[in-house]
Amino acid sequence: MARGRTVRVLVERHDADGAKRRPDELVVEEPMEIRLDGHLVTTTMRTPGHDYELAVGFCFSDGLLAGAPVRQVRYCATGTATETSFNVVTVETGGQAPEPTPRLTTTTSSCGWCGTDLETLRSRLHPLVDVRPVEPDVLLKVPDAAQSAQELFERTGAVHAAATFDGHGEIGLVREDIGRHNAVDKVVGRLLLDDELPAGDRGLFVSGRASFEIVQKAWAAGFGTIVAVSAPSSLAVETAKVAGIRLAGFARPGRLNLYA
Amino acid sequence: MARGRTVRVLVERHDADGAKRRPDELVVEEPMEIRLDGHLVTTTMRTPGHDYELAVGFCFSDGLLAGAPVRQVRYCATGTATETSFNVVTVETGGQAPEPTPRLTTTTSSCGWCGTDLETLRSRLHPLVDVRPVEPDVLLKVPDAAQSAQELFERTGAVHAAATFDGHGEIGLVREDIGRHNAVDKVVGRLLLDDELPAGDRGLFVSGRASFEIVQKAWAAGFGTIVAVSAPSSLAVETAKVAGIRLAGFARPGRLNLYA
Repeated sequence: MARGRTVRVLVERHDADGAKRRPDELVVEEPMEIRLDGHLVTTTMRTPGHDYELAVGFCFSDGLLAGAPVRQVRYCATGTATETSFNVVTVETGGQAPEPTPRLTTTTSSCGWCGTDLETLRSRLHPLVDVRPVEPDVLLKVPDAAQSAQELFERTGAVHAAATFDGHGEIGLVREDIGRHNAVDKVVGRLLLDDELPAGDRGLFVSGRASFEIVQKAWAAGFGTIVAVSAPSSLAVETAKVAGIRLAGFARPGRLNLYA
Repeated sequence: MARGRTVRVLVERHDADGAKRRPDELVVEEPMEIRLDGHLVTTTMRTPGHDYELAVGFCFSDGLLAGAPVRQVRYCATGTATETSFNVVTVETGGQAPEPTPRLTTTTSSCGWCGTDLETLRSRLHPLVDVRPVEPDVLLKVPDAAQSAQELFERTGAVHAAATFDGHGEIGLVREDIGRHNAVDKVVGRLLLDDELPAGDRGLFVSGRASFEIVQKAWAAGFGTIVAVSAPSSLAVETAKVAGIRLAGFARPGRLNLYA
């Protein structure tokens, strides 16, 4: 099922010395349709790979599973939105998940949790209990460790990474995608499939900024700690405080800011 | 109508010397509902400011105006999705734009043009003619010039910028937002309101990566050139080629790659 995550192209490199052609590697971006028990849930632009995890993680983070068990995940050969059967993934709960309701197309700064706001979220999720946020001195080690695990980024410079880490700062799962939220969904999906949620004693690392939706997804998965390489938004900080999540931003080797 | 684009907070700065509290500035992220002739179009997470431009730019880029003139743009006091009237913006065409059709919620790697793929786009947009792509030696000057115009980024480190530049590399409009696509929509909306579209002899600068949706928006607005600070995706390159747009990536002071 492995699909290409990068393609090689020839580019024209321009600098002070003029132009020369050289090979370059681009990250692949393709639409993937996610279905839940046969119902269309969403179409997301993603980097192929870990598609099952992305589908499961999205349905879980979005609250669509509502506690229903995932019985099967499969590629669907009858997709209509895209031309290849590998771009449609169905999550099956045997009809135990409620039917997803069509919503208006909505967009966010970086996707996904479209139109959801903090009040809506509060009605669905509860502040985390039994979480053990990772200590700040441990968090200082995470960016370095995570960076060395970002394989695609090294090659393409165009993907985001999400990773889990434990109380000692050891990196666990790493997932990369052209979409920040997809990388998080892939991590959450893997944890769910491995029956490792909620993830209270672990932390979530994201390679970019911490926006509202990233904090939402971490909250849904029960992460006690988030470390973002860049800055958080105001709403991300507010959401983390409500959730009871320790939120670190501007995390670079040896320094970070704690926002919540 | 100016709303706060940043908030000041106290953060705990951790480094090798321990922790100390210091003030920090966060970029504001809030939902905004966009309506077209009274019909809900989308809800987007955005940084307040230039909201009218964002609403107009989104409707235009998404093809919703279908050539209809924008007669009025206003904040709506009867919004239901959000609590404040400044988070609902209505674009009025006097009913000349077709009624937007509800679609399923969809997501992309960084928003907006959800579920649209290249084939769909081809049916709506035509390859650009009469464009004058900006010359590579001029493009080399753009990143520096644009960076010095990114006010919010300097302060928060959490926003994306979009800017126009002319054939001499001079920066024109600059818009910043927590969402890359919002920044582009704000630029496109301003140009439309100023009756300056299509933008064939100008270029579009984006502070992040060039994804499919950024190229789509540039295509809709008729930009002949795109300069992105980071790498493009495979689909972005493919789309730029179909559109006839010159696409430069990894644009840093003094060097860049031409992909299309």
